[in-house]
Amino acid sequence: MTTVMHYDKSKSQVLRKVSQVPSVLALAQTAPDANRFGESFRILLRWKGSIYKFIWRDLLVYYFLFYLLSILHSVLDDDGKKTFQALAKYCLKNSNSINLMIMLTFFTTTAMQRLFSMQTTIPGTAKVITCFIMSIKPNLLEGPIIVEQFARWTVLAWILTFRVVCKPLRTMFPDMISLQVAGIIREKERVILERVETEGNKTPRALVVIDWMLLLLKETAIHNRFAEKSNHLKVIEILMTFKKSCGNTIKFATKNIPYALIQAAIIVVYAYGLVTLMARNFEEAGSSGFLEGIVNYFPVIPSMQFFIFLIWLNFGRTAVNPFGTDEEDINVKLLLETHIQDSFRLANLYTQDLDQIFGIMPQ
Amino acid sequence: MTTVMHYDKSKSQVLRKVSQVPSVLALAQTAPDANRFGESFRILLRWKGSIYKFIWRDLLVYYFLFYLLSILHSVLDDDGKKTFQALAKYCLKNSNSINLMIMLTFFTTTAMQRLFSMQTTIPGTAKVITCFIMSIKPNLLEGPIIVEQFARWTVLAWILTFRVVCKPLRTMFPDMISLQVAGIIREKERVILERVETEGNKTPRALVVIDWMLLLLKETAIHNRFAEKSNHLKVIEILMTFKKSCGNTIKFATKNIPYALIQAAIIVVYAYGLVTLMARNFEEAGSSGFLEGIVNYFPVIPSMQFFIFLIWLNFGRTAVNPFGTDEEDINVKLLLETHIQDSFRLANLYTQDLDQIFGIMPQ
Amino acid sequence: MTTVMHYDKSKSQVLRKVSQVPSVLALAQTAPDANRFGESFRILLRWKGSIYKFIWRDLLVYYFLFYLLSILHSVLDDDGKKTFQALAKYCLKNSNSINLMIMLTFFTTTAMQRLFSMQTTIPGTAKVITCFIMSIKPNLLEGPIIVEQFARWTVLAWILTFRVVCKPLRTMFPDMISLQVAGIIREKERVILERVETEGNKTPRALVVIDWMLLLLKETAIHNRFAEKSNHLKVIEILMTFKKSCGNTIKFATKNIPYALIQAAIIVVYAYGLVTLMARNFEEAGSSGFLEGIVNYFPVIPSMQFFIFLIWLNFGRTAVNPFGTDEEDINVKLLLETHIQDSFRLANLYTQDLDQIFGIMPQ
Amino acid sequence: MTTVMHYDKSKSQVLRKVSQVPSVLALAQTAPDANRFGESFRILLRWKGSIYKFIWRDLLVYYFLFYLLSILHSVLDDDGKKTFQALAKYCLKNSNSINLMIMLTFFTTTAMQRLFSMQTTIPGTAKVITCFIMSIKPNLLEGPIIVEQFARWTVLAWILTFRVVCKPLRTMFPDMISLQVAGIIREKERVILERVETEGNKTPRALVVIDWMLLLLKETAIHNRFAEKSNHLKVIEILMTFKKSCGNTIKFATKNIPYALIQAAIIVVYAYGLVTLMARNFEEAGSSGFLEGIVNYFPVIPSMQFFIFLIWLNFGRTAVNPFGTDEEDINVKLLLETHIQDSFRLANLYTQDLDQIFGIMPQ
Amino acid sequence: MTTVMHYDKSKSQVLRKVSQVPSVLALAQTAPDANRFGESFRILLRWKGSIYKFIWRDLLVYYFLFYLLSILHSVLDDDGKKTFQALAKYCLKNSNSINLMIMLTFFTTTAMQRLFSMQTTIPGTAKVITCFIMSIKPNLLEGPIIVEQFARWTVLAWILTFRVVCKPLRTMFPDMISLQVAGIIREKERVILERVETEGNKTPRALVVIDWMLLLLKETAIHNRFAEKSNHLKVIEILMTFKKSCGNTIKFATKNIPYALIQAAIIVVYAYGLVTLMARNFEEAGSSGFLEGIVNYFPVIPSMQFFIFLIWLNFGRTAVNPFGTDEEDINVKLLLETHIQDSFRLANLYTQDLDQIFGIMPQ
Repeated sequence: MTTVMHYDKSKSQVLRKVSQVPSVLALAQTAPDANRFGESFRILLRWKGSIYKFIWRDLLVYYFLFYLLSILHSVLDDDGKKTFQALAKYCLKNSNSINLMIMLTFFTTTAMQRLFSMQTTIPGTAKVITCFIMSIKPNLLEGPIIVEQFARWTVLAWILTFRVVCKPLRTMFPDMISLQVAGIIREKERVILERVETEGNKTPRALVVIDWMLLLLKETAIHNRFAEKSNHLKVIEILMTFKKSCGNTIKFATKNIPYALIQAAIIVVYAYGLVTLMARNFEEAGSSGFLEGIVNYFPVIPSMQFFIFLIWLNFGRTAVNPFGTDEEDINVKLLLETHIQDSFRLANLYTQDLDQIFGIMPQ
Repeated sequence: MTTVMHYDKSKSQVLRKVSQVPSVLALAQTAPDANRFGESFRILLRWKGSIYKFIWRDLLVYYFLFYLLSILHSVLDDDGKKTFQALAKYCLKNSNSINLMIMLTFFTTTAMQRLFSMQTTIPGTAKVITCFIMSIKPNLLEGPIIVEQFARWTVLAWILTFRVVCKPLRTMFPDMISLQVAGIIREKERVILERVETEGNKTPRALVVIDWMLLLLKETAIHNRFAEKSNHLKVIEILMTFKKSCGNTIKFATKNIPYALIQAAIIVVYAYGLVTLMARNFEEAGSSGFLEGIVNYFPVIPSMQFFIFLIWLNFGRTAVNPFGTDEEDINVKLLLETHIQDSFRLANLYTQDLDQIFGIMPQ
Repeated sequence: MTTVMHYDKSKSQVLRKVSQVPSVLALAQTAPDANRFGESFRILLRWKGSIYKFIWRDLLVYYFLFYLLSILHSVLDDDGKKTFQALAKYCLKNSNSINLMIMLTFFTTTAMQRLFSMQTTIPGTAKVITCFIMSIKPNLLEGPIIVEQFARWTVLAWILTFRVVCKPLRTMFPDMISLQVAGIIREKERVILERVETEGNKTPRALVVIDWMLLLLKETAIHNRFAEKSNHLKVIEILMTFKKSCGNTIKFATKNIPYALIQAAIIVVYAYGLVTLMARNFEEAGSSGFLEGIVNYFPVIPSMQFFIFLIWLNFGRTAVNPFGTDEEDINVKLLLETHIQDSFRLANLYTQDLDQIFGIMPQ
Repeated sequence: MTTVMHYDKSKSQVLRKVSQVPSVLALAQTAPDANRFGESFRILLRWKGSIYKFIWRDLLVYYFLFYLLSILHSVLDDDGKKTFQALAKYCLKNSNSINLMIMLTFFTTTAMQRLFSMQTTIPGTAKVITCFIMSIKPNLLEGPIIVEQFARWTVLAWILTFRVVCKPLRTMFPDMISLQVAGIIREKERVILERVETEGNKTPRALVVIDWMLLLLKETAIHNRFAEKSNHLKVIEILMTFKKSCGNTIKFATKNIPYALIQAAIIVVYAYGLVTLMARNFEEAGSSGFLEGIVNYFPVIPSMQFFIFLIWLNFGRTAVNPFGTDEEDINVKLLLETHIQDSFRLANLYTQDLDQIFGIMPQ
Repeated sequence: MTTVMHYDKSKSQVLRKVSQVPSVLALAQTAPDANRFGESFRILLRWKGSIYKFIWRDLLVYYFLFYLLSILHSVLDDDGKKTFQALAKYCLKNSNSINLMIMLTFFTTTAMQRLFSMQTTIPGTAKVITCFIMSIKPNLLEGPIIVEQFARWTVLAWILTFRVVCKPLRTMFPDMISLQVAGIIREKERVILERVETEGNKTPRALVVIDWMLLLLKETAIHNRFAEKSNHLKVIEILMTFKKSCGNTIKFATKNIPYALIQAAIIVVYAYGLVTLMARNFEEAGSSGFLEGIVNYFPVIPSMQFFIFLIWLNFGRTAVNPFGTDEEDINVKLLLETHIQDSFRLANLYTQDLDQIFGIMPQ
């Protein structure tokens, strides 16, 4: 993932592979039908994004420890065995009384609800760019330059917002120079942006860019470039909505699920795991040798509960930080690429007309 | 369902049967009253869309395996019987401790909430078409052509969106040619649409069509065809809302419930089923021959819980992928037919007037 | 409820009794205060809309069967008694393990949430009528006729929508003739509406009416009857919102809670009821004759749980179909009457002025 | 609370004490910090709005009955004691199996969610009054009269709405005369309002007032008093939003949580209370005299669950009817006072300007 | 935190440290990735905002009491030991039957949902300031003064709102003089604001300031300073939205979770803690000396449940009062600083243009 991204029409299609085009993605990601008989088994065999991939390492560690304890038990003397079994029984009883199901539900539900609501309110650049382009007079001489600038600044505000919340993007653009290299900002803009977010001037960078956009809109109004005067305030309002959803994204990431809640969830799940490691039902096992074998060496049922908790915990934690590097996370780099491409395509609309595309039509 | 659909006024009514007209559908689908005595029993007897249809295959397999185990038990020697009973008791105890109710609730509730919210935000074509038709000057010579084009493109953007998320629609329109054959796109449009969503140009097709619509709106503004200048930006905004809800539909399908969660739900439910197969209460059964018969051959109560889980799982899975081929799924083909019909009817409004419909009225 | 409803100013007040005027209704329906001591007992004594009315028939059947089993037990010989008691114990144990609380919660919560959200989004006719009336020039000669037509069509679209989802309304207006008899549609309109929703033309009737309204708005714009040109598109948008909420009402009724879920809920609740019928705690009863009497003849506590489930199930089922004939259902006929009255009152506003009402005021 | 309220500038500040001014209220009502050590204990000691105030009467009755039973037990002969203890054991077992936690959660959650959502959508008069005042031309001769009338009618519509749902307000204004006495309506208005909501004319009174406001807006438009023509429809829309939120308030109160659900919740909670009264763990108590004393005379732990349920039930019931006389209820009278004051202050804005307030400023 | 805040361009950057700039904050606050192996353990080691910081004091007290009881047990005579053990068993049994999980879930979920919804609806000053600045004619002579006044008043209304709900802000600005010292209000304004919220005039202060803003807008309209006439009503509507969200913030704080609910939650959690202190499983402990040691001196598992409840309770309580001084609370002072800075930056936009920033650009 060390591809350099360029804000440049010719190179802008480098990053995204064809397998990441929505229609292709959708084929791979659409959930299977529910009612076909046997379909369930096919789902269970999938590896990509599967439960097995999530937990195989934990699984290995768990069973390694489990067998270690089983071996320990078999080599103990009678007194040791008695203590071991008493402890096992004690753990078994306590494991049933740890009522963490509801707590996990609370944690995961809260995290997922926030994620889903965030997914639909994530800031998009298309609306504000399109409305600006369509609200100014067509065929202005200076039009293409203004349009390009507005579109680029919108993308820039988007990047500066997501740099704050998304580690991979911060790695991609560690400083303003890297943005200039990628063609997203100009020399002069870089100089200004480097002076803010410092002790001297603590304005967040994204706000500085939105100020530029506001000034551009003011200039557009002053120079009478809007097709209608009332368009000015409308585009301002659309821009403020864009700004607000940028702000909400940052709020989402910085005013998140409390850290202590994540810790609490982790502690209870792993504590439960440790207890089930030791919890063995020797009493019943005693009634038949076959059963003793199962209790000692195939702890599928007792451990299943633990792994369900573990997976659940993972969903919650993935949902808490949806802009990270986890597989289920939102691929912000891909998203950025899309926004850059869109900004070019939309900026082009200013000079394009339908005749260029289809030839003269009978209108 | 191999009917060919045509974007053509004369043929457009082929697909939908009269039983699919809303008022007729509603009669069949309205839920029954709650308070009438005996009504409950009538509900239980219905087959279509019923619980029995959902689970009869699983039921057969389950009882076949159950009786197999019962027979196995009766032919075992005493030692075997003892082991069998010990295992049964072990399973019985564990089956009670698998606390999957809350997990299933979480899975199904999450999936259904997303489905319900999606059902009301699904993109509709009527608003954007109507507002465009009503916002341009009446009686323009070129009006009918523009209106037809805008309406057709709206439907096209809708189809290209739902092709991404809905397998049956993808089967219906496997490529751009099939859309041309159906009369939904023109030759030139097909050529353009075939060039995108490839390595060379990764723009999603639906966005290309929305660009055309934007250009058409720009042209309408330039040629002064809007009844009022301010209508331009308003229709742009309505179009952007349509675009956004198309985007949300794709997001819904590609950023769905994590695959691993579906797997986890399936695993726990079937694991529970396997355990209940073996779990038998021989202890109590011993107290009377009558009861032993029930325990061994009429496991209605112990298995009921499993089947409740199974049905619940199915609801969740159906809700995860509402555009598939399951019976409860949204019938996207029917929906498409409706949108095509609507687009004709609305496009006709441009040239129609009330006098044509009712004769001269005293106005 | 066989009153004929007429869309006619003089007769329009027939249906609604004074006890159905909101302020009077509210007095009867306002929930009682929570904190007054003893208030709780007063609530328990109310019959109308009460829990007892819901379940008294089920209660009778339940206790009849219960005593039958008690009598059966007392007349059995010792062997039979032993089997009976073993079965009772078996049922008792299983009744505790049927974990249907959470499933019912899921069913009822889902159904009620949809109902509550639907109640606030139910389409209303007042806004669209008022905005139309207020947006056209005052004192037009043809004004009153246009206004009357628009108001009547709005009500008509409302009726045609609710005929689809509400059985009582379908009984009231079984066909288009009945609407004409009630004065809601004219001869010509009836002829047109009878031709749609058939094999020949499957357009839903409500949409046809909304098309007429759109054409009326177009005509209003062409003949320059709007006080301001920009009003045209605004009223169009308000009308589209009305149409959307009509569509959502139909979606609510036809894409409802899956049938199978209702069946599943009914099955588990009645199965639980059957099990509790048999489940008796003879062991403890044996310790004292007094207790045996309670266990055998006053099964209040064991059966209470079942009746709670039954009531809960009923709420869920009532919420699934809120337009039916259940007592808690939305009274659609009363609602219709209100909308008809409102449409007259609002249409009158066009010609009224404050001076007529209050005499000349010092303005 | 028998203060007479007057719609009159000079007297309008009678009702509200200074302790009810928001900033003072907030100090008293702000929840305490969570993390300070020992803070928890301070919270527990508060009486106002406390849990103790809620339940002290129930507590007294409960413990009185409990000790009565304990005394009864001690004076019984051996046979009686045995029966008593058998019954106690029977109750103890059953009390554990009454699973009403989830049902109460459902009831209270549903009621509270509706309350919270209602609290933010409660109709406010400020927006519609302000927008009207600001949308008409300044310095009109007849301006102050129109503005006063519009503001007063807005408050009147608010009162007539809340009279329907709020018993204390109905007690305050039992009839139209009382409104006239309070200066809220004029003679002529009273005569008209007395004729509606009767058998002869069933229009709700609030709608009549909103009709007057619509007519006033029409007149304002006809006499060209709006600063801009387009303001007319905008104010109409704002007024319709006000009307809608009035309607929603009435819907909230009349289409509430079903009565039977409240009954069911009350029955299960009190039934649980009765069972716990009798449920005593004599078996364990037997093992030590100290414990027997606790079981018989300090039933803190067993009864705690019941009181939690009772409190929970109370929250639910308070949330069902938030306009009543309970302490936690919304103080509608205070709210009315605020709206009256606001209407004066806002109406004054029409004639005020900044210079009057601050003296001439350098503008 | 005794820094004095000044509404003054030169000094306005005093309060916020660079570590509080969003991008830096985000780095520290972004939740860690979920899938990296071993990451979980790193999370557990963090102290800041951690679970340990939350509960260490309670932990110390708990274990101190626990060991006290253990020591007491060991010094008791046989009779005392027997009573002690009976009591321990009694507590153990009752601790399992206290079903407070669901109650806590209800409390915490309700509190957190309100918090999250509040976080996104918290009033912001940027939109209303920006829209005002952009809606007036550029290059007015008196422009900068009006703009500065409007921006300052917006911030003032924000402060007066949050003073009501936020104790730290009330400590910072105990009276109007302190606001004048900070440069936020002028002499004359202070005099007026001191006269309100008293017995003589109970208008809330924030409303007085919003009245000033309305008058300023009226003046702007009268003196024809809006670039377009229709801007007047639009800015009014945006201002009313700002006012509404101020009002909602106050409602959030004063119509909060009922006090009694917080008390109930505290009581049950601490009661549970007290019971678990005593609840010891001596029966099992008796089977081995090793286990007895664990039961008496390492009560990790039994006490874990209590601490989970305690943490959960804390989240709920923090969420109830998000404007306090808890670490997880919203830092209102920092927020204020941001709003002050923003108001300067935005007010500057009126006189700035892009050329000043970037030099002449080729437009």
